[in-house]
Amino acid sequence: MRVEGRWRRTIEVNKAGTVVVLDQSRLPYETSWLPLRTLHEAAAAIREMKIRGAPLIGATAAYGVAIALREGGSLDHACEVLAHTRPTAINLRWALDEMRRRIATQDPFAAAAAIADEDVATCEAIGTHGLELLKRAAKSGRVNVLTHCNAGWLATVDWGTALAPIYKAHEAGILVHVWVDETRPRNQGLLTAWELAQHGVAHTVIADNAGGHLMQQKQVDLCIVGTDRTTKNGDVCNKIGTYLKALAALDNRIPFYAAVPSSSIDFTVAEPEEIPIEERSGDEVRTIRGTSVIDPNTAVANPAFDVTPRRLMTGLITERGIADPNSSSLAALFPERVR
Amino acid sequence: MRVEGRWRRTIEVNKAGTVVVLDQSRLPYETSWLPLRTLHEAAAAIREMKIRGAPLIGATAAYGVAIALREGGSLDHACEVLAHTRPTAINLRWALDEMRRRIATQDPFAAAAAIADEDVATCEAIGTHGLELLKRAAKSGRVNVLTHCNAGWLATVDWGTALAPIYKAHEAGILVHVWVDETRPRNQGLLTAWELAQHGVAHTVIADNAGGHLMQQKQVDLCIVGTDRTTKNGDVCNKIGTYLKALAALDNRIPFYAAVPSSSIDFTVAEPEEIPIEERSGDEVRTIRGTSVIDPNTAVANPAFDVTPRRLMTGLITERGIADPNSSSLAALFPERVR
Repeated sequence: MRVEGRWRRTIEVNKAGTVVVLDQSRLPYETSWLPLRTLHEAAAAIREMKIRGAPLIGATAAYGVAIALREGGSLDHACEVLAHTRPTAINLRWALDEMRRRIATQDPFAAAAAIADEDVATCEAIGTHGLELLKRAAKSGRVNVLTHCNAGWLATVDWGTALAPIYKAHEAGILVHVWVDETRPRNQGLLTAWELAQHGVAHTVIADNAGGHLMQQKQVDLCIVGTDRTTKNGDVCNKIGTYLKALAALDNRIPFYAAVPSSSIDFTVAEPEEIPIEERSGDEVRTIRGTSVIDPNTAVANPAFDVTPRRLMTGLITERGIADPNSSSLAALFPERVR
Repeated sequence: MRVEGRWRRTIEVNKAGTVVVLDQSRLPYETSWLPLRTLHEAAAAIREMKIRGAPLIGATAAYGVAIALREGGSLDHACEVLAHTRPTAINLRWALDEMRRRIATQDPFAAAAAIADEDVATCEAIGTHGLELLKRAAKSGRVNVLTHCNAGWLATVDWGTALAPIYKAHEAGILVHVWVDETRPRNQGLLTAWELAQHGVAHTVIADNAGGHLMQQKQVDLCIVGTDRTTKNGDVCNKIGTYLKALAALDNRIPFYAAVPSSSIDFTVAEPEEIPIEERSGDEVRTIRGTSVIDPNTAVANPAFDVTPRRLMTGLITERGIADPNSSSLAALFPERVR
């Protein structure tokens, strides 16, 4: 998508052969690109959330393997280090498994580039399928979509997952307006606002508390969120707070969809309880943009994800079409992934 | 309650006859007392949220009338100015009506003091009734309560509404732990954490997004919130985001109560749609403790309250006992208020 007027991806290999990523820890205040020269730098970029978003974590891990092998490191060690950077996004494990498989027959950088290219194609396909939902929800050519966190271009290599249908609708001339949840504690909503602004899509930032009221007031036509891991039955693990919005959507009869690239589906997991929920540092809640708002002696809990049970989901927008939130519908779309 | 070791109220008349309030716009970072010498200062303190919380807004408005009359102002003008400071909390209108009635036979400052004293007694009675709920919810002497915003001592003259049962339980030796919602955009949860810390009540601050997940994880036994206005049918208007937590409580079969002093019940209003919802400045979302986090050009919406429908409430803790969320139960407790 466009950054400062240029069409770019969130992860690129420059002319010197160095992998660079857009440093999201400085957005929306500063646009800077971070080189990943070593396995250590790639792992740190994921762990410290210089890059984030399940699909981009996967693509960065794939490049991390290629970088490690170029350094002369072992494949096992690289996979071990990268697998432990973040616990919840299943795309990480998926990308490492793919790299193991692909580098048997392919150059590691070519394999990582292919994974990145496939992510772009996947997201664009999600956009195309999701566009139909926006067309259907639009009233006199206008549609209000609520999203949580950032599942946009910045969370992927290009296009985004939850935002891909929005970009497609914008291109198709539908008047889309996006309610952007701030998404405390890390305020990823500001990343969403930033990338929507870069593309000229109308949007309004709201506190995470406001979404339910806006739904009661009939100011939301459709909700689309991303996912860090979806069970084979269609339960959606996503940024903390997603569950609350899904409850409100159901209570107000508003369709609630997750955009789910198949790399985010964990076909080995059936129930929500099996997904590890990352507990991050309380300092993320205590400090906002370098300003301390909560005393360091105050206890803080900071679970980073929650699971929205499948019974609250209207559907799952995958790259192969929209699935119902159940195992047979997902298995029918991705038969090769079912064991 | 205790502030820096001394037992104080949020609004007091000092030896010189000046009304002073604890300036909540500086808490939890600084404890300072603000004199209210004129009607203008009293109105500004309410409008600019130097004081907040429905019961305290009522008590401050009562003193505002007394101050205006001492200045030589007219009763009608004082009521007019004060009535327009905040639109949602019904206690404001209630207190002004009470002052009109009482000053026919009583010195205005004595009338305001009586309203303040009655608020203390009301809140303590809510604490006594609510204590029974905490006793019932406690497992082996421990209970986890989730609250939203600040409906504590700081929102009233003393004791608080939602927090009064918690203080009573703490005094009764029950091991209470409170999950404190941060409560964006104004972070009133930090006021709650501050006053709980002053009293030694265990608590943990969480992002507003986290409550649903904690309920799913069975880490919440009971929810108690305050209210800015409750309809005669038992619909609870409270700080934005309350509705989302009530949905999650119902989904996880956790009791969800509002602490409702009768001064917060609007017996003239039957349905949620009749309550005006204050839309506050977007700058409250854009700026956190003086630090800009959102670009001034980014659109922001900031509705300050939502209404939790009565069907989601377990009960209403009033000063005369716990009501069911319906008009007959409320009318039975407060027959003199029904028209």
